[in-house]
Amino acid sequence: MKFGSDNQTGASQKVLEMINVANEGYTHGYGDDKWTKQAIDELKNVFEYDLEAYFVSTGTASNSLALSCIVQSWETILCHNYAHILIDESTAPEYFSGGARMIPISQGAEKLTTEHLEDYIELAGTELPHNPQARALSITQASESGLVYPPTEIKALSTISKDNGLRVHMDGARFANALASLECTPADLTWKAGVDVLSLGATKCGALCAEAVIFFDTELSESFIHRRKRSGHLISKGHVFGAQFVGWLRDNHWLELARHANSQAAQLAEMISSIEGLQIVWPVQANELFITMPEDLAKFLWEAGAEFYQWYIEALPTNIEIGDDDVFVRLVTSFATTDEQRIEFCEIIRRYFSEQTYIKPYGV
Amino acid sequence: MKFGSDNQTGASQKVLEMINVANEGYTHGYGDDKWTKQAIDELKNVFEYDLEAYFVSTGTASNSLALSCIVQSWETILCHNYAHILIDESTAPEYFSGGARMIPISQGAEKLTTEHLEDYIELAGTELPHNPQARALSITQASESGLVYPPTEIKALSTISKDNGLRVHMDGARFANALASLECTPADLTWKAGVDVLSLGATKCGALCAEAVIFFDTELSESFIHRRKRSGHLISKGHVFGAQFVGWLRDNHWLELARHANSQAAQLAEMISSIEGLQIVWPVQANELFITMPEDLAKFLWEAGAEFYQWYIEALPTNIEIGDDDVFVRLVTSFATTDEQRIEFCEIIRRYFSEQTYIKPYGV
Amino acid sequence: MKFGSDNQTGASQKVLEMINVANEGYTHGYGDDKWTKQAIDELKNVFEYDLEAYFVSTGTASNSLALSCIVQSWETILCHNYAHILIDESTAPEYFSGGARMIPISQGAEKLTTEHLEDYIELAGTELPHNPQARALSITQASESGLVYPPTEIKALSTISKDNGLRVHMDGARFANALASLECTPADLTWKAGVDVLSLGATKCGALCAEAVIFFDTELSESFIHRRKRSGHLISKGHVFGAQFVGWLRDNHWLELARHANSQAAQLAEMISSIEGLQIVWPVQANELFITMPEDLAKFLWEAGAEFYQWYIEALPTNIEIGDDDVFVRLVTSFATTDEQRIEFCEIIRRYFSEQTYIKPYGV
Amino acid sequence: MKFGSDNQTGASQKVLEMINVANEGYTHGYGDDKWTKQAIDELKNVFEYDLEAYFVSTGTASNSLALSCIVQSWETILCHNYAHILIDESTAPEYFSGGARMIPISQGAEKLTTEHLEDYIELAGTELPHNPQARALSITQASESGLVYPPTEIKALSTISKDNGLRVHMDGARFANALASLECTPADLTWKAGVDVLSLGATKCGALCAEAVIFFDTELSESFIHRRKRSGHLISKGHVFGAQFVGWLRDNHWLELARHANSQAAQLAEMISSIEGLQIVWPVQANELFITMPEDLAKFLWEAGAEFYQWYIEALPTNIEIGDDDVFVRLVTSFATTDEQRIEFCEIIRRYFSEQTYIKPYGV
Repeated sequence: MKFGSDNQTGASQKVLEMINVANEGYTHGYGDDKWTKQAIDELKNVFEYDLEAYFVSTGTASNSLALSCIVQSWETILCHNYAHILIDESTAPEYFSGGARMIPISQGAEKLTTEHLEDYIELAGTELPHNPQARALSITQASESGLVYPPTEIKALSTISKDNGLRVHMDGARFANALASLECTPADLTWKAGVDVLSLGATKCGALCAEAVIFFDTELSESFIHRRKRSGHLISKGHVFGAQFVGWLRDNHWLELARHANSQAAQLAEMISSIEGLQIVWPVQANELFITMPEDLAKFLWEAGAEFYQWYIEALPTNIEIGDDDVFVRLVTSFATTDEQRIEFCEIIRRYFSEQTYIKPYGV
Repeated sequence: MKFGSDNQTGASQKVLEMINVANEGYTHGYGDDKWTKQAIDELKNVFEYDLEAYFVSTGTASNSLALSCIVQSWETILCHNYAHILIDESTAPEYFSGGARMIPISQGAEKLTTEHLEDYIELAGTELPHNPQARALSITQASESGLVYPPTEIKALSTISKDNGLRVHMDGARFANALASLECTPADLTWKAGVDVLSLGATKCGALCAEAVIFFDTELSESFIHRRKRSGHLISKGHVFGAQFVGWLRDNHWLELARHANSQAAQLAEMISSIEGLQIVWPVQANELFITMPEDLAKFLWEAGAEFYQWYIEALPTNIEIGDDDVFVRLVTSFATTDEQRIEFCEIIRRYFSEQTYIKPYGV
Repeated sequence: MKFGSDNQTGASQKVLEMINVANEGYTHGYGDDKWTKQAIDELKNVFEYDLEAYFVSTGTASNSLALSCIVQSWETILCHNYAHILIDESTAPEYFSGGARMIPISQGAEKLTTEHLEDYIELAGTELPHNPQARALSITQASESGLVYPPTEIKALSTISKDNGLRVHMDGARFANALASLECTPADLTWKAGVDVLSLGATKCGALCAEAVIFFDTELSESFIHRRKRSGHLISKGHVFGAQFVGWLRDNHWLELARHANSQAAQLAEMISSIEGLQIVWPVQANELFITMPEDLAKFLWEAGAEFYQWYIEALPTNIEIGDDDVFVRLVTSFATTDEQRIEFCEIIRRYFSEQTYIKPYGV
Repeated sequence: MKFGSDNQTGASQKVLEMINVANEGYTHGYGDDKWTKQAIDELKNVFEYDLEAYFVSTGTASNSLALSCIVQSWETILCHNYAHILIDESTAPEYFSGGARMIPISQGAEKLTTEHLEDYIELAGTELPHNPQARALSITQASESGLVYPPTEIKALSTISKDNGLRVHMDGARFANALASLECTPADLTWKAGVDVLSLGATKCGALCAEAVIFFDTELSESFIHRRKRSGHLISKGHVFGAQFVGWLRDNHWLELARHANSQAAQLAEMISSIEGLQIVWPVQANELFITMPEDLAKFLWEAGAEFYQWYIEALPTNIEIGDDDVFVRLVTSFATTDEQRIEFCEIIRRYFSEQTYIKPYGV
């Protein structure tokens, strides 16, 4: 019943095994090793593109390094109002970019739309050097609401971006989950749809600590090795990242892991949707569920050992009615989520309601 | 008819004279001179407080240096959606603070209210170190809409700020205009109302290039001299700032200048309010008018040599109706605005409408 | 014969096993897990001190984060002329500290001495805010020349530092090797000798990617969690660092590994010292050898598969004579160095010289 | 007798007059005015080049902005061991460049030589991204020792710089003094000799606060307007800089001022050289004298109202013998230095020695 986050477990067995295998023998440091090379080859293969890829240990580093390569410190990055880069990564994007600014443009919406982008661009001041100018759009895939962006939507956003001089970054912390959810290829979701740089996260979906910054527009990568080094993200035993990515990508292991997580989320959603008193806020398309439930139920679940967090109440769409005694929470499934966990969770919910029903006539 | 901005003129005669007087003789550099000392004494006197004051050449430096002393680079600064520090100073606040973030909290409102502040604080994430925490509120006086904040409003905002660990900065680029507009003392508008640091601008109201960063909470100033030096804002012939402030403050010269500018704005507003087809968006309380007018009229005025700029259409309140052919513009009066300029401006407007009336029956 | 660096291998078996063990089950993210807690407890135990410890993935991050907590961006850090932080970490210290400056003070010397420190302090300008002031001393242990600093030397350096308002940082990338070399405790080498912050490296001595920033002066750590997060160094599956440190520290495993590396270095030195034509530049006290050898020999060894790098010729002491055809190289042993590697290396050297001897009479 | 610095006076009468003249009437802000345009035209004319020029209020801003346009934050700037940018500007170059590093390369020398540059380049590590690479050379004209660099020396330094990928910056805080000292044109000293960017200081030589960043390689200026704005150096009433430069440059006024200062220095040097007990350390080629004198004499002079500062003892050449009771001091003349001041200064010195002579036989 651990639905707190998909980073609250270890690595998948296959990924872990590859770390063990790669531990043998002598190797050059700082990424000059066969595992790193193989991982890059796997990525080129999977994305069907002659891309450049660099590995780091965290999603925050991956996102911020990518963004720092595509904006100047006097420019801005447009993003969703609940983007992880905006809300959950301290002021890392500012730090890495030397002070570029993030501007949320999706007030009240579950996903970024072309309208958000067009409205911002139309209304923003253009007086130089006074008004900072937008130079990047960052799209989160799967999105902040657990929804996914199909290729057409990404393409539409990137087209407007390119027409206005913006580069397109994708925060792919849950890219695998989005991919598993959509009937398309990694290429369809990225360079074919106009993505310039992808922060591809393996950690949340089965790795231990392995994130890739992938440049499709390789002209943007020029400064990357310097930025990675001086931010302390060039690890000496670089094969540890390479090994994880090889284990993760090979034989579609990453997609298996993502499909499992998505499937658990879908089943959890189905079970929950049948229970009165709970509300699923957005369709469940990847491995996150956003739901409203009575606060007492939440407490009951927490006491029973379930783990999940309250979500930003401000992010709740205005068309969703929420009672004064309700809370807005997020459930995340992972490659490690089991049927048992899911079933037990719903059992407890049902028990809560049956007790409530029983007590109520005599109670308050 | 030069209503573009109050910084589009030289210095007042008295300020200029003082620059000339101070030019004589030998002096120590870097602010160790009698003019700087006198200016600080004048400020202590005017504000009735044992304050610390430092001088710089621009409002952007003054605001950003002040903010950099009161927030850490992983914290945030709350401000109005159209704050000058947010919209018109590139990414200077980020630069000086090492990457702190500005967060606009007044969507759709002409001034900051306690409700804006309370709502933000209630809804913002508090998870450390993930969610960046608010540490400062920046209030613009006179405000972004040309309105002024009376002491009670400042006090209310600062009280909530202090209760939540936020320091209070005031962007006083038009502080003199606000002061001249309100029946109160400089002390009432600042330290008595809970302002910790004031960026007091003299440039817009009669100086050549002279801004003061004034610390009422002198514990916050510890790093100031280092920040000013390493940002290149410690000028060697420091008496040039001192002299300007002495000339500006002495004998209430600054208030005279501000009253003149305000009076011109008020009279301009009165004349305009009597003309059909123009709309004054916010009450004129200082030296700025925000009005809507037909785009053709704006062009007519520009062609006749009038100067003024279009304003951010997004900032227009939703209760103001604006026609498809109307534009939203800002007029600024200054200490140098003359009755003739004002009268000529209104004459041209009337001429436009009379021609329009004449043409229309036979025209398109 | 892989003497390129002690980071060119995997993790020790015990460390790797602990990574595997810790992979099981559910855990909270971002360091809120039992492995992280155990690792901190081990460190407290080993250092006999109620210290604070934080984990990161690289030595560069560990050093730079530590330094950024003890200097302001307008201050300076004194260090050895060949300090890793100065020479080999890009401009990471400047980046993390917001632009503090490193000043090398040991021109021509193999280790930092109190004289270096005293001379610098005596001669440096003190005019504020013009002259940047020293606020930290960084000592590398084991040092840049492969020598170690005994507790008395550290104490002497730190005493002068403290007397002059400098904090003391230790770059302990090879701290274990220094400790294994000296007859003293971890406490003797650190807080008892006046070290305020230690960057303790496990990676070079048996871990995969695990470095600890250890605060003995815990008042200096206040900003650490923010700095770590915004630089992208807070990993989500934090147990991976905890597990490595637990495996590394428990049962003196780290000292065993270090002793092995040191012993290999000592034996290699002994063998080399008996060969004419090679010169050992500094006494071998930890796991690094700095030697001069004929360039042809170096090429012969490289061709035979040996790995080692040329060192900064400028760092060669003036009392060491080096022929025009000689090169200055560094050999590093590690926990994984074997007797066979060492013996083979010396065999090749001997073979080179016997061939040379044979050829020379008839040759050039 | 005010020889403390050439920035301890006001503006020359001609410069001041131009400030007064330019104060009249209406003007656009932020440098979009006729005075700024005229000043740029004057510079183009004086330098015989289609240059780009931007104005700021301090030398620190001018130097740091220039440097920030020619190096990346992971690169280094080579300079003299006593360069003003290294010693006297806090950590401004690091701040503006985002953390680039300054490396002094002239240990013990009065001026930078090609040998310094060649030695550094030969010995510096080239391993990327570990070793930060040199990208700029900064030359101070007139130099740190009061000597000037003739065109041939600048050309020689810039040729090696260009051959190694370094851009050439000139700190011209006393450029006018150097120019007045050498028989050549502004062009000879700058673009014809390979200077890419010049920080031209007017303040020390007759302006109030006016410095120009002049790009001869105009491809390097792309980011300048953003960097100037976000560092708070774009002043609104920009004509104040333009007016000063027009007044300063027109009719060779700047050279007259510089010649006067140089002449005073030369005459002071001549008078001093005839006095036993004082030593002139470097030939006096511009407007600075570096001399050794008995400490008691220095005190005697200070008490008599003379102003001058002790200089960095470390900068004293090894071939200069200095007694235990001697001090090393700097005297600076300016456009405002009078014959009377100079003569009085030498009178006091003679009086000191005559009293000493008189007292000594009977005294200690």
